[in-house]
Amino acid sequence: MVRLVERIKEFDGVLHLYQHDSEVCGCTMSFTVYLPPQAAQNEVPVLWWLSGLTCTDENFRVKAGAQRYAAELGMALVIPDTSPRGMQVPDDAAYYLGQGAGFYVNATQSPWSHHFRMYDYITQELPAILAGLQLPLSDRQSIAGHSMGGHGALIVALNNPGRFRSVSAFAPICHPTRSTWGKQIFQVYLGEDQAAWQRYDACCLIQQGAAALPVLVDQGTADEFYPQELLTEELVAVCRARDLPADIRLQPGYDHSFHFVATFIGEHLRWHHQRLR
Amino acid sequence: MVRLVERIKEFDGVLHLYQHDSEVCGCTMSFTVYLPPQAAQNEVPVLWWLSGLTCTDENFRVKAGAQRYAAELGMALVIPDTSPRGMQVPDDAAYYLGQGAGFYVNATQSPWSHHFRMYDYITQELPAILAGLQLPLSDRQSIAGHSMGGHGALIVALNNPGRFRSVSAFAPICHPTRSTWGKQIFQVYLGEDQAAWQRYDACCLIQQGAAALPVLVDQGTADEFYPQELLTEELVAVCRARDLPADIRLQPGYDHSFHFVATFIGEHLRWHHQRLR
Repeated sequence: MVRLVERIKEFDGVLHLYQHDSEVCGCTMSFTVYLPPQAAQNEVPVLWWLSGLTCTDENFRVKAGAQRYAAELGMALVIPDTSPRGMQVPDDAAYYLGQGAGFYVNATQSPWSHHFRMYDYITQELPAILAGLQLPLSDRQSIAGHSMGGHGALIVALNNPGRFRSVSAFAPICHPTRSTWGKQIFQVYLGEDQAAWQRYDACCLIQQGAAALPVLVDQGTADEFYPQELLTEELVAVCRARDLPADIRLQPGYDHSFHFVATFIGEHLRWHHQRLR
Repeated sequence: MVRLVERIKEFDGVLHLYQHDSEVCGCTMSFTVYLPPQAAQNEVPVLWWLSGLTCTDENFRVKAGAQRYAAELGMALVIPDTSPRGMQVPDDAAYYLGQGAGFYVNATQSPWSHHFRMYDYITQELPAILAGLQLPLSDRQSIAGHSMGGHGALIVALNNPGRFRSVSAFAPICHPTRSTWGKQIFQVYLGEDQAAWQRYDACCLIQQGAAALPVLVDQGTADEFYPQELLTEELVAVCRARDLPADIRLQPGYDHSFHFVATFIGEHLRWHHQRLR
């Protein structure tokens, strides 16, 4: 059952804060849907947003300033949480594991595998929940995200050809099977067999021939995790090798924070909007 | 001594996060200055922003989306904290008293009077600190705020004629000497003598003949504190009685949150910018 927890008016549209009991994650999950003013008349295209480490569905709606552009362009925003949550859900003292750090994978290892199934949650359960709400959302959908969520947006789009018209990312973890961060996390969630990691790695998916779709990436050069944990240049290389339509931009002086996201979110929404028409 | 704690690039300008030892407040204080890209060439006009209950200088810079407009218009933002802070500073379990709730007054009552001197901090100490930093800030300045900070912006502007070109507020506490909230707080900080409260009450100051300046107020009709704690209609009445140039607008369906502030902050910055030319 889905509960509408709060409605908040913003830019003449409405933020809808929902909670529901997730079968896939085995806990109560939260998500936010922003409907722009145009949704009062017509179905509107949708941008999914996947957030980064430590975030809930609140961070993006409060910090990015995206609703201003969504209202101008007539796009809905769908903003899930980043992991299962609650007393019964395993956690870890490290900020990059456990609650707030689902990494958009289906964990296969104990004790994570019962709850940490964010890949299925994002690609199957939440779309079905949304369909049941009968909101004025079009099938024209794109996806974007930040950091861990940029990684999530890329792997979800690449693994589901035809589902999204375009994908964009801010400071994504581009090649987790090769970064210290990624290796640590995938080992815990997915076990020792590195072959099982590759379906969750954007660079591996592109190398293995994933269907092309328009890609936009912004990466700040003053980002504390760039380049060693993000491996942006590896994404550039695999896209170039396949001649894919990827625009991967270095932004001088910008860091990893939401101030960076806020600076370029308007461009990302406009870019997706052109591909959603 | 003022310490530059962090520089964060946003919208091609730079957020500067400062800390300093405040003589007036008897503790370390934080504040943020946003310099738009135009400040690299010329002095830029300044908008002061006073935040509401529970806020630090972080909330506005993270949640309001103001830097986008400041960068477009070429305005600096000066964002102080809302109260003294630290182990040695008195506090209270109530969110509307103590740390995070300075109310922009000079407290006269024990134990508050040693630290809670936000009126002098905003009007004297912080301007002197800023002058010492030799930032490219013009004398053309305006002031704005939200809730408790809307009250602060109004009383600071009304008590300092000629200092600010314009004042605006989101959901301000308009008449604290008459609201339950205001009376509770003023009694604690200022004591029983209600005559001493009036210099911190926008409606009283206007009734008593404060010099006119352009005023813009936005108030959401779905605000949980409207009208009983905010008394917006009292501000309308005293401005009308003196035929002051005040534009006080009710915004249907908006609440008290930063989603409301974000929706209208662009209009406020443009409105101030016209008066700062």
